[in-house]
Amino acid sequence: MTIRLFITGGTFDKTYDEISGRLLFGDTHAHEMLRLGRCRLEVSVRTLMMIDSLEMSDADRRLILENCRGAAEERIVVTHGTDTMVETARVLGEAGLPKTVVLTGAMVPYAFGSSDGLFNLGSALSFVQTLPHGVYVAMNGHCFAWDDVAKNRAAGVFEKLR
Amino acid sequence: MTIRLFITGGTFDKTYDEISGRLLFGDTHAHEMLRLGRCRLEVSVRTLMMIDSLEMSDADRRLILENCRGAAEERIVVTHGTDTMVETARVLGEAGLPKTVVLTGAMVPYAFGSSDGLFNLGSALSFVQTLPHGVYVAMNGHCFAWDDVAKNRAAGVFEKLR
Amino acid sequence: MTIRLFITGGTFDKTYDEISGRLLFGDTHAHEMLRLGRCRLEVSVRTLMMIDSLEMSDADRRLILENCRGAAEERIVVTHGTDTMVETARVLGEAGLPKTVVLTGAMVPYAFGSSDGLFNLGSALSFVQTLPHGVYVAMNGHCFAWDDVAKNRAAGVFEKLR
Amino acid sequence: MTIRLFITGGTFDKTYDEISGRLLFGDTHAHEMLRLGRCRLEVSVRTLMMIDSLEMSDADRRLILENCRGAAEERIVVTHGTDTMVETARVLGEAGLPKTVVLTGAMVPYAFGSSDGLFNLGSALSFVQTLPHGVYVAMNGHCFAWDDVAKNRAAGVFEKLR
Repeated sequence: MTIRLFITGGTFDKTYDEISGRLLFGDTHAHEMLRLGRCRLEVSVRTLMMIDSLEMSDADRRLILENCRGAAEERIVVTHGTDTMVETARVLGEAGLPKTVVLTGAMVPYAFGSSDGLFNLGSALSFVQTLPHGVYVAMNGHCFAWDDVAKNRAAGVFEKLR
Repeated sequence: MTIRLFITGGTFDKTYDEISGRLLFGDTHAHEMLRLGRCRLEVSVRTLMMIDSLEMSDADRRLILENCRGAAEERIVVTHGTDTMVETARVLGEAGLPKTVVLTGAMVPYAFGSSDGLFNLGSALSFVQTLPHGVYVAMNGHCFAWDDVAKNRAAGVFEKLR
Repeated sequence: MTIRLFITGGTFDKTYDEISGRLLFGDTHAHEMLRLGRCRLEVSVRTLMMIDSLEMSDADRRLILENCRGAAEERIVVTHGTDTMVETARVLGEAGLPKTVVLTGAMVPYAFGSSDGLFNLGSALSFVQTLPHGVYVAMNGHCFAWDDVAKNRAAGVFEKLR
Repeated sequence: MTIRLFITGGTFDKTYDEISGRLLFGDTHAHEMLRLGRCRLEVSVRTLMMIDSLEMSDADRRLILENCRGAAEERIVVTHGTDTMVETARVLGEAGLPKTVVLTGAMVPYAFGSSDGLFNLGSALSFVQTLPHGVYVAMNGHCFAWDDVAKNRAAGVFEKLR
């Protein structure tokens, strides 16, 4: 069983640019993280975009949806910025694909020593293997159904709606 | 739902002792790892022993079994050295407890920058929430049934038997 | 011999704020870095300000100068943002204090795994012990006299003028 | 000015071997550390041996001495295990070479997150540029003359004799 890993950017993949002194996007850290986790799953990585999720447009979300729909794999993990992860989950969830799709991300860039990214990636790759078809958000140990989750921005955590 | 996390030692928790220049056990890194993963699950940590799994005795395994049996929680993660993880899984598996127990560990100590520990912990805490009652080994993205796994020591990886 | 360590902020001490997703200042990492380096020197740390060096005013520089002048110690290290480190070095250098003052910083925040901060701190604390009175900029192994250094912003490196 | 960096092994360069679960030597981490420190000095690295300093023989020490003597560079840093660093320093010191030689190492392997190695390397590369001819031990911020230093093994620190 191959798992598809779509990269869209977000905090997860931000790096510090030494010249400008700002957080920018370079290549994804996904390969390095899979290597660090000594991940033995067959994971097929593809970068769809590399953007801050606050800048994600409807067209971007349709692109993610079409890639999930068109993928040969039935099990898909999508890395995503946390700010609008729930919105993208809704677009994917309402499409009702016969697949298991898990969105994940990080509160702190992977390139920071203190990142939750590796924990979340290990978690998302596990949930995606065991959950029934549907769309989920996996963050910080929890896995939420796409229609029962919100980001509490003040606290910086994901919560159930109900 | 609270998850019980039993610590038994293993590579996962080894640290470098500056005075002796050797790898020894101190306190578990589990709390620090849960904090790093910003884990929002209720996890109740208890250290049962802090040993190299090559030195684990039958009595040690019975102690782990009795703790799994006696725990109030139905979902349990056990950190364990990789060398005899499969043996302990068998002892737990044959007992047929009405619980989901996931053993995990690390190929490289968490205290090393290059450890797979955080990935595996995120993974184990996810599998334990979704899998039916039974005993499993979760390493490097895969989850094996207790009676269908072996450690390939030459390659340093876990594999299915069949 | 006690060495005085004045903290003024800069890239060196920036941290990632999980809520806003931006690089901000919290407490200095100097104590943690000295601990990591197992530094056995007597170092007396004092935070003068915690700002981006692009926002450093003439009044801020006078404050740094007055603190260098007033310090009981003859050997002083100042952490500083790289963008205007040379300007502050000039203010200190022109004052002609009978002290050895070494400015240092980092191209990447210490909190990032890939930071040069620890290397630079070890370097600055060594130069300050051995150089004659004067004001210096210590970055990435080199030590420049205050009147013979410029930051090449395009390349992100410090260079001699002549 | 080029600085010669001789590698001899020691804690500094130990790595965790996943298969055997032991600390072994692979390639030196010196190149990676110089890159991390964004070191802009011309440093010419050469590995002379890769051993635990407890296993260093008289012949090994003569080899280090002959390499220091024969090097084109006048400024030399030697990485070395801490247990017998002082002994090697004595062999080099008694030879009275017209060069500045600084021995350094680490209390914790560089590959561990908690290593003092990067701090010490930054420090040694700075002392070697500024100190007069002679042989020195640079550890944890201090720089000792070769004939006035001992390792306090119980405390895991280097101290002056007098």
